[in-house]
Amino acid sequence: MPRSPLTEDELIAKFFAPMAGEGSFGLTDDAAKITPPYGHDLVLTTDALVAGVHFFLEDAGAAVARKALRVNISDIVAKGALPLGFLLTLALPSDWDEAWLSDFAEGLRRDAEYYRAPLLGGDTTRTPGPLTISITAIGSVPAGRMVKRSGARVGHVVAVTGTIGDAALGLLLRRGNATLGALSDQHKKVLIDRYATPRPRIEIATAVQRLASAAMDVSDGLVGDLTKLLRASVVTAKIDLDAVLTTEAARSAFTIDPKLRDLAFTGGDDYEIIMTLPPDNLHDMQRAAGEVGIAVSRIGTVTKGTAEPAFFDRSGPVRFTRPSFQHF
Amino acid sequence: MPRSPLTEDELIAKFFAPMAGEGSFGLTDDAAKITPPYGHDLVLTTDALVAGVHFFLEDAGAAVARKALRVNISDIVAKGALPLGFLLTLALPSDWDEAWLSDFAEGLRRDAEYYRAPLLGGDTTRTPGPLTISITAIGSVPAGRMVKRSGARVGHVVAVTGTIGDAALGLLLRRGNATLGALSDQHKKVLIDRYATPRPRIEIATAVQRLASAAMDVSDGLVGDLTKLLRASVVTAKIDLDAVLTTEAARSAFTIDPKLRDLAFTGGDDYEIIMTLPPDNLHDMQRAAGEVGIAVSRIGTVTKGTAEPAFFDRSGPVRFTRPSFQHF
Repeated sequence: MPRSPLTEDELIAKFFAPMAGEGSFGLTDDAAKITPPYGHDLVLTTDALVAGVHFFLEDAGAAVARKALRVNISDIVAKGALPLGFLLTLALPSDWDEAWLSDFAEGLRRDAEYYRAPLLGGDTTRTPGPLTISITAIGSVPAGRMVKRSGARVGHVVAVTGTIGDAALGLLLRRGNATLGALSDQHKKVLIDRYATPRPRIEIATAVQRLASAAMDVSDGLVGDLTKLLRASVVTAKIDLDAVLTTEAARSAFTIDPKLRDLAFTGGDDYEIIMTLPPDNLHDMQRAAGEVGIAVSRIGTVTKGTAEPAFFDRSGPVRFTRPSFQHF
Repeated sequence: MPRSPLTEDELIAKFFAPMAGEGSFGLTDDAAKITPPYGHDLVLTTDALVAGVHFFLEDAGAAVARKALRVNISDIVAKGALPLGFLLTLALPSDWDEAWLSDFAEGLRRDAEYYRAPLLGGDTTRTPGPLTISITAIGSVPAGRMVKRSGARVGHVVAVTGTIGDAALGLLLRRGNATLGALSDQHKKVLIDRYATPRPRIEIATAVQRLASAAMDVSDGLVGDLTKLLRASVVTAKIDLDAVLTTEAARSAFTIDPKLRDLAFTGGDDYEIIMTLPPDNLHDMQRAAGEVGIAVSRIGTVTKGTAEPAFFDRSGPVRFTRPSFQHF
């Protein structure tokens, strides 16, 4: 790849200024301005992606942009907040390619529009290392109503959106796992796409804010993330794994190798929302989510104590040897 | 260096949770919460430091922490805002050293306390590349009063805080420049320390907010940054370089090699504030800054037009061949 002749200012003007939102001053100032919505708190989160660690070097620019923004949007909406915008830091290796970056910028622009999260500012620098993308996303939530990990209470229902495990199986496929080669092309596509493209549950952010007692997005695996939520709430839970929804593609993988079911429940990158709710709120939650085509499955109940959660299925208790996925 | 056995969660719990502020939930949640001060806008900025690019690999952890936080605080206060907190993203190479990171965390903790900018959240990840530190700082300013680059008007005074050029000369020394070897040890220390440790002008942030029409921090050189400010305001200026304050250490360097004066005015890392003010505000600005021991020098006047600013000194017009320093 030829070294691009653009300076930092030219690069910003060409690729990022056109998508910059109100309060960004066209990326020509040193800081962005946000006027917080009246009576709201701001919610902030930051997540970085490193080439070769969090995505593949051959991934398309737009796909990497989507992933970088969406993992942050997912954290915002799982807290019951709606996005206001984001800041982008790009550390570019010297062989950065203008066509790739143009695709990255276009993917980012489309997503920023879709999630109504305009680019507010950022920083661009060189690195002798791999491409590193760091995004800080800002959201807003009615004052005092951010949904924390720590609000689960004994007797509350444990529920999770959508399907679990596809992304972890998709990553296995991307790594060339031979066993999964037996899957149909259609099933492979479902799993790989799910790994490539997180779909933050923004459509139910407001319902989560109104109805959930605790919530977080499932990024490091259902088992590990639920354990963290319960620990923060100083409670535990009984969880029926048969109640967790899985896709036909994932179930085909379990048929090929039953051990992959463990991976599905402990692998990362689902970007669903795991939550607890007062029992009376479950129906409203399921209805609100159902209206936008999102399933919310009741998978267990919050119980007293600080032991690890008790997982079971039709054949009895289930133990996980590696309860959480860590990118670190 | 031995590979540290700490997991990401242990690392966060050991080094960063102890300094985390209100709204960070002890770094145990997925997002931070800020309740914006009533009637205020929020100001956001982000700046990354890459080992080997923005700091030396042999720099102490605390020094790197100070630099990483202060370059962001400098952007906040130059906009007339006061810091509320920050988010930290650390991409750590596999050979990270626990003693270094402990020193980094301690330096960060002291600075967060000094600038009343608590750690609110962050992300920690591995990288096959160099240590990369990305900080997003958040500040607040009375609604509508963020001081932008674009507010300079014809007839306004151009002023700059403190002294200019020390840091660029300090960087030359750090790189082993032979000519500067002739400086006294005391002068070398002044210059190297100025490069190592930015001192954001937080003491006058409120005065800048009340009195300046436009402002920015001087991070990429006085000449280049002033040019950017004037361009954003669609004006130009006449600037008397003899009115720019320099330290005795810098003037000793100019005596050794007169060409270094150009470097002083175009090199980076000063972290002073360049501003424009209605003429009637200059006296109040100088008095407010004087009370906290900061000089504010009148160095020129904003004039009509969009030409490059006209720099001069006692011997006539001065042209710069390389008007700005770019880290990129």
